[in-house]
Amino acid sequence: MSPLQPGSTIGILGGGQLGRMLAISAAQLGFDVHIFTDEPDSPASRVAAKTVIGSYSDHAALADFARHVNIVTTEFENVPAETAEALIAAGARVAPTPNVLAIAQDRFDEKSYFLSAGIATPPFKAIGSQDDLDAAIAEIGAPAILKTRRLGYDGRGQIRIKTAADAIGAYEKLGAPGILEGFCAFEREVSIIAARGANGAIAFYDLNENEHAGGILSRTTLPANVIESTVIAAQAAARRVLEAFDYVGVLTIEFFVMPDGALIANEMAPRVHNSGHWTIEGALTSQFEQHIRAVVGWPLGPTTRIAAIEMLNLIGEDANDWPQLAADPTARLHLYGKREVRAGRKMGHVTKLRSS
Amino acid sequence: MSPLQPGSTIGILGGGQLGRMLAISAAQLGFDVHIFTDEPDSPASRVAAKTVIGSYSDHAALADFARHVNIVTTEFENVPAETAEALIAAGARVAPTPNVLAIAQDRFDEKSYFLSAGIATPPFKAIGSQDDLDAAIAEIGAPAILKTRRLGYDGRGQIRIKTAADAIGAYEKLGAPGILEGFCAFEREVSIIAARGANGAIAFYDLNENEHAGGILSRTTLPANVIESTVIAAQAAARRVLEAFDYVGVLTIEFFVMPDGALIANEMAPRVHNSGHWTIEGALTSQFEQHIRAVVGWPLGPTTRIAAIEMLNLIGEDANDWPQLAADPTARLHLYGKREVRAGRKMGHVTKLRSS
Repeated sequence: MSPLQPGSTIGILGGGQLGRMLAISAAQLGFDVHIFTDEPDSPASRVAAKTVIGSYSDHAALADFARHVNIVTTEFENVPAETAEALIAAGARVAPTPNVLAIAQDRFDEKSYFLSAGIATPPFKAIGSQDDLDAAIAEIGAPAILKTRRLGYDGRGQIRIKTAADAIGAYEKLGAPGILEGFCAFEREVSIIAARGANGAIAFYDLNENEHAGGILSRTTLPANVIESTVIAAQAAARRVLEAFDYVGVLTIEFFVMPDGALIANEMAPRVHNSGHWTIEGALTSQFEQHIRAVVGWPLGPTTRIAAIEMLNLIGEDANDWPQLAADPTARLHLYGKREVRAGRKMGHVTKLRSS
Repeated sequence: MSPLQPGSTIGILGGGQLGRMLAISAAQLGFDVHIFTDEPDSPASRVAAKTVIGSYSDHAALADFARHVNIVTTEFENVPAETAEALIAAGARVAPTPNVLAIAQDRFDEKSYFLSAGIATPPFKAIGSQDDLDAAIAEIGAPAILKTRRLGYDGRGQIRIKTAADAIGAYEKLGAPGILEGFCAFEREVSIIAARGANGAIAFYDLNENEHAGGILSRTTLPANVIESTVIAAQAAARRVLEAFDYVGVLTIEFFVMPDGALIANEMAPRVHNSGHWTIEGALTSQFEQHIRAVVGWPLGPTTRIAAIEMLNLIGEDANDWPQLAADPTARLHLYGKREVRAGRKMGHVTKLRSS
């Protein structure tokens, strides 16, 4: 594709904080942004030139949206296949391509793809019934985690199976087709944010070390406490995925790091990622600008990290600490403009830079 | 004032690039922004939750604007006095206060104020007729510069008087009440960006060294090549102005630096300033975030500079170089979303960071 000129319009599916930060980066490069969301008064809509509020299955609304933008991208992976198809049918260019969205939407397809690409995963089995679950527990053993195949995020749609007894009735409780994943005795969790430009160039950010609480990312630090071969393996895995899908944009893979430094892929997100929010202040090009650069066909920017990093998520009532955070000279505060504080809701984040 | 909570709404008068960058910083802190502008499709409106397009003398539109925001600030100093009064009459809080806007709007009042505050200026005389001009030239001498008292910026409304002969007919050519300023044989130009919080705390950014071309800022570099006493004098002058007006927000003073390091005040801008754009990447808190913090009653953020800086303005056709600038890994590119390239128009800027 030829690069989009400044002044072109970028359509973003989704109105959450990722869309908000993408919209801000797009504006800084001179682009206009239109948001398509099913949510009124969304965080992203308040920094965008235009917002279309509609259902992701409303083909007429999608077609109208497509006609007014030069490229469509997304802030979330659970875009229904029909949404992407309706946009493409209406003549829109969509990046990243829908094929990778489809795989990332289904934990079984995703892990099957990882294995086919030579990227290690925890042991896993598709679960379509209690019988499947019982058989899988017998094979994989406990502890294990039963997850819905689709639409789970931030720890939702997950049941921990500590012993075989926890499996009794668990499939009914899950209430949807699932996947059983064997437990990994990992030492730490990391993620890699990678980008591929329209010209095939690839760039990596430094590895993020992540801590979760209640299934939700709580803290990211850099540099990650890993050996060099772990970094090389993460980059190789990301490169394989980016090239396999002729991917354009930012993509994230989350890994478990085993005691010997080996990586086990947990999941991928075909988008900017919470563990990369530090790049706004901490890297020469933020992940948000990088994604915009990729999808408009511009050269990727430098990913150099400028300091040691601690990024803290503000979940639910954490955001009520804004007076203290606003007064902390070490804290770069970001709030997403969400109207209501709810338990488990990502309300903002704080990035701290230290001399590395 | 008690600090405004995240989710509050900030009204900004003016829809240009300064309003656009203020709006982005406000959003990052969790605020909504409404823009009031007389210009349709303005750069700031495309990153704001709402825009009111109206005349700055339309009291009904201003009152309606005021009712939907928690505080009103401005991106430009030439706000008509009646605009501020109409907003205040409608119950709006306005920061900075209109008294400093009034002074900054008139070059004669501004320089008279500087003198009264003990801040050195070039020699100057108010010019209301050709006779005034002839008398002023006789007193101040040539070279000198004849400027309109009001509404001039970026070199507009200025006539250079190289020799006394250039003064013939110059008042008619100016076409408005003027001020004659004596020429300063300065060595360089600098500016200071200062901020004062609602609690009276004051913060300074490092001094900017500025180069102009055709009366328009073309390049800002830091650190400025000045001696320590020059920095102290600039800070003292800014502190005097901030405290004299009980000022809340970011304020800029431009100075000439004489060969002995003495400062001569050229003008002040009661707002964020082009010479401070580098603070987006180059300081821990950008001037835009700092201004928002001040006007919402939050603590000021740290102004620490993290690198040596070169900021280059993209004026008019400079912006057509975006493909090269987008590909330059040392250039952090900002484009303002202006629809049309015009000679002398500020289209964007580039910031380069180097190890200092």
